[in-house]
Amino acid sequence: MNSAATRDPADRLVAALAELERLDVSAMTNDDFLLTWERSDDEIRGTLAVAAALRAMREQNISSRVFDSGLAISLFRDNSTRTRFSFASAANLLGLEVQDLDEGKSQVAHGETVRETANMISFMADVIGIRDDMYIGKGNAYMREVAAAVQAGYDEGVLEQRPTLVNLQCDIDHPTQSMSDLAHIVDHFGGIDNLRGRKIAMTWAYSPSYGKPLSVPQGVIGLMTRFGMDVTLAHPEGYEVMPEVEEIARRQAGESGGSFTRTNSMSEAFADADVVYPKSWAPFAAMEERTELYGNGDFDGIDALEQRLLAQNARHTDWTCTEELMATTRDGQALYMHCLPADITGVSCEQGEVEASVFDRYRVPLYLQAGHKPYSIAAMIFLARMADPLGEFRRLLDRSTSRVS
Amino acid sequence: MNSAATRDPADRLVAALAELERLDVSAMTNDDFLLTWERSDDEIRGTLAVAAALRAMREQNISSRVFDSGLAISLFRDNSTRTRFSFASAANLLGLEVQDLDEGKSQVAHGETVRETANMISFMADVIGIRDDMYIGKGNAYMREVAAAVQAGYDEGVLEQRPTLVNLQCDIDHPTQSMSDLAHIVDHFGGIDNLRGRKIAMTWAYSPSYGKPLSVPQGVIGLMTRFGMDVTLAHPEGYEVMPEVEEIARRQAGESGGSFTRTNSMSEAFADADVVYPKSWAPFAAMEERTELYGNGDFDGIDALEQRLLAQNARHTDWTCTEELMATTRDGQALYMHCLPADITGVSCEQGEVEASVFDRYRVPLYLQAGHKPYSIAAMIFLARMADPLGEFRRLLDRSTSRVS
Amino acid sequence: MNSAATRDPADRLVAALAELERLDVSAMTNDDFLLTWERSDDEIRGTLAVAAALRAMREQNISSRVFDSGLAISLFRDNSTRTRFSFASAANLLGLEVQDLDEGKSQVAHGETVRETANMISFMADVIGIRDDMYIGKGNAYMREVAAAVQAGYDEGVLEQRPTLVNLQCDIDHPTQSMSDLAHIVDHFGGIDNLRGRKIAMTWAYSPSYGKPLSVPQGVIGLMTRFGMDVTLAHPEGYEVMPEVEEIARRQAGESGGSFTRTNSMSEAFADADVVYPKSWAPFAAMEERTELYGNGDFDGIDALEQRLLAQNARHTDWTCTEELMATTRDGQALYMHCLPADITGVSCEQGEVEASVFDRYRVPLYLQAGHKPYSIAAMIFLARMADPLGEFRRLLDRSTSRVS
Repeated sequence: MNSAATRDPADRLVAALAELERLDVSAMTNDDFLLTWERSDDEIRGTLAVAAALRAMREQNISSRVFDSGLAISLFRDNSTRTRFSFASAANLLGLEVQDLDEGKSQVAHGETVRETANMISFMADVIGIRDDMYIGKGNAYMREVAAAVQAGYDEGVLEQRPTLVNLQCDIDHPTQSMSDLAHIVDHFGGIDNLRGRKIAMTWAYSPSYGKPLSVPQGVIGLMTRFGMDVTLAHPEGYEVMPEVEEIARRQAGESGGSFTRTNSMSEAFADADVVYPKSWAPFAAMEERTELYGNGDFDGIDALEQRLLAQNARHTDWTCTEELMATTRDGQALYMHCLPADITGVSCEQGEVEASVFDRYRVPLYLQAGHKPYSIAAMIFLARMADPLGEFRRLLDRSTSRVS
Repeated sequence: MNSAATRDPADRLVAALAELERLDVSAMTNDDFLLTWERSDDEIRGTLAVAAALRAMREQNISSRVFDSGLAISLFRDNSTRTRFSFASAANLLGLEVQDLDEGKSQVAHGETVRETANMISFMADVIGIRDDMYIGKGNAYMREVAAAVQAGYDEGVLEQRPTLVNLQCDIDHPTQSMSDLAHIVDHFGGIDNLRGRKIAMTWAYSPSYGKPLSVPQGVIGLMTRFGMDVTLAHPEGYEVMPEVEEIARRQAGESGGSFTRTNSMSEAFADADVVYPKSWAPFAAMEERTELYGNGDFDGIDALEQRLLAQNARHTDWTCTEELMATTRDGQALYMHCLPADITGVSCEQGEVEASVFDRYRVPLYLQAGHKPYSIAAMIFLARMADPLGEFRRLLDRSTSRVS
Repeated sequence: MNSAATRDPADRLVAALAELERLDVSAMTNDDFLLTWERSDDEIRGTLAVAAALRAMREQNISSRVFDSGLAISLFRDNSTRTRFSFASAANLLGLEVQDLDEGKSQVAHGETVRETANMISFMADVIGIRDDMYIGKGNAYMREVAAAVQAGYDEGVLEQRPTLVNLQCDIDHPTQSMSDLAHIVDHFGGIDNLRGRKIAMTWAYSPSYGKPLSVPQGVIGLMTRFGMDVTLAHPEGYEVMPEVEEIARRQAGESGGSFTRTNSMSEAFADADVVYPKSWAPFAAMEERTELYGNGDFDGIDALEQRLLAQNARHTDWTCTEELMATTRDGQALYMHCLPADITGVSCEQGEVEASVFDRYRVPLYLQAGHKPYSIAAMIFLARMADPLGEFRRLLDRSTSRVS
């Protein structure tokens, strides 16, 4: 089932480089990775191919250190152990050293300060990874502000290199997650061309905690609709995601020969699904309201909103991934996915997103899903910083330095 | 006296590798270093030999970078500048980059969360160093839980490599400290075989501070009893260490032809000693009680216990390492040891573990003792991650890359 | 105008190494960089040359990694994103890994503790960068205490290498800043010999914030007076800098054939200036008083002093760099400098050090000025740790490893 686990890494490496050779990834050089739907199909496939090649090299103990020195700057607006480790792993794999820019949890100022700080930290930076997902309309905009600042710095001769921005999660998309999810699905079905006609259910699920980000469901519908899949987005009324992203999903589904369906029934989504992704998120409209309240400094309003959302939330405890629901999927064997950590009923909370027996059964696949992230990030960096990615792989294989001697 | 300081590093390197060649260290490959008494005599000697070889190489400016990339994860439950630097130095010496997993001072959850977190941070980790010494029955158990999690992850194909666990101090043992202490004693007496019949006094000493860990005295009696030394453990009544570790010390002393004696007299311990190690620690039974109180959330009980312990402590201010006591040791010349920082009378506190003049006289040896730690840690990593340690040294010497050009 | 930006990096590299060949920098080996006026003219020129060579190499994608392993320890008494990144960039460029010694904002103890800690963290340290500028009479003294500790550790055989101390800002000087400022001026005027007769105005400017360090103006007058420049120090009455540093500036101006003038008129300083450096700082006498109050734990006294200083400050809002003032400089075209971040009127504060239009016009030169710092720090490390700097450059060029492959 899992092609990555079963095929020989040497074979996988050859296949990945052959795939890369067929693709046009030239526009990725010196560019950022901010939203998957800004990248062409070739570029999405190229990112998968590079990630697969880097993994196959590491499994064969071949170094992919392409930087002799250089910094990878991480800028996180919240504590995130896993994202931090994924980014650090990717940077280290390529030879970059992570330097954290810790700006606390407060919102960073904009305008002049962003421009100046972005340049001051980038004199020797090859990558800047940003995670900023807390406020609707802010995170992705901030990334573009930083990108413009370092582009100007490079054009003006202030920076000797133009650091690449990698979106490690924003208010709109979560490309390093969705690309890892895609890699996992591709492994599971034995190739990206086998996704055609498969049904994936991205569904809301109940969690006692408040305000989980929208970037995961948005990232999934914004990416999986590109490969001919039948994508169903399911959630209770009132839990809509950003309409712009739904629109993108709808358009892409049409172009790729797949479909995009929205429903308010979890069971309808699960029926005959090949993949299920049940996960809690906050309503987009409420997150927009929260951003506005925050902007006005109306903390009483935020409290009131939170109470309202918790009450709304509590009406949907029946949205949970049970064995019973799993039995209704294709042959009762759908691939269960989650970005982790999940809220597991009776384990991490009284009532959560998934039944413990379902989670347990899929624990190994879930860990494999997560294991794609360091390689997805490394692939984005590699494609942005290497002008000739294929030639670079040939050079690395020719050099053939051992990772561990 | 100090052979490491007096002999040529090239000679020391040859001797260390010749020693390594005689030893069977094969069971250390891919294994953890959690308790010294779980390792065979060959493995203890092999760890000393590898540490000595790495040091002799560095002194000759020969690189021992065996990793081209890879992470060394540190997980500390308390702030520890020195342990942090020792671990970072060891990792850096071998080519690994440290990534801190900062879980704050709160106790990390167990069960599912440990399993998941351990795997999520280990995708590109070659080592995990853990320091968790605050609660009896917890620290070492937690390390084994993490070890089991990454072993399962490796067996299930989630992890491409199985990171090695290094115990950087737990509730039972402090192997990187005791191995460094042993290396220091071996240097002092000119060889491990010269330890036979030497008397070492591991004695309690008064400090105004409360609750110092038991892992140092336990680590010392659990290791020094293996080489034919006469090990005396001295403390006031009520300051017993873990009975299981005493039992191990007693058994090992019998097997090695040495002895293990317990006394409630500091002067008896110092009499004719070759080595003295006076240091404060908390009573084991009290630490066990504290763990239980903590488990029950009984913070009033913890306060009461602390008051009781401070009162008990205050009755033993006469347990201090004076010049007078030092004069009673073998030729008045015993080697004074401490894991640092020490509580020095009139310097760091009014009344402490040692008189200032004694400490001052032994300052350089104490710093040399501490200087073994980065190499001890590096040796543990090297032996766990290199399948053929001797062959690896030959390759490094053959390559002969300069550390500083 | 900016020679670094216009000339070919290969040419600049040749020129820098030819310059280095003419200079005697031998006394820098294994020495610290604490005050610019402790270094000979050859050594100042040599530091510029090495910084320029390292930059020209990086621009040509040639690695200057001279360390295969080793730590660069940073010890900051305050949060400083920019200094942290400059130091990390410099260390990374040479192959060292940064390890932060976070001692919080509290003052580190002196005496025994400094000696012990300095040795404990230095077993594998090649550099220690310290920033300690908060208290008059403390920062530089602390650096010398650390330097003495590691020197003793090295002499006693505790440390295998003697880590170099780099002053990243103290109460007296800010050598990495002033050397970067000098490099920027040299670039601007096309060579160090073109500085002769140029007028630089180091002037106080109003900022609403309290207590900015004296090290920048002191560093500038203590360095720029060495190259035949006409250095004018301007500030309102009561904002005097350390008299010892003024004395050094006066003596050096005499020796170099330049001049050192003090005035209480900003317009006098700006008149016909080739370079202007308007910046807020706290009065030296007040800082000395604050240090004493702090030493006595007199926090009410500190509050009272702060109120007095803010009132005094508010009387000088007219000390600001306006377009009108800029028009009075040489051809209205003086180079405007600042160590950043600046307090910009109407941008970062209501009324500040500089008008927004002036700042905007010089934004690119200001960023270029800041961009010298990583190279200045790297040059200090390089000259201290490489016994034969010129030979080392030849070896690096011969090796010619790519920084990014």
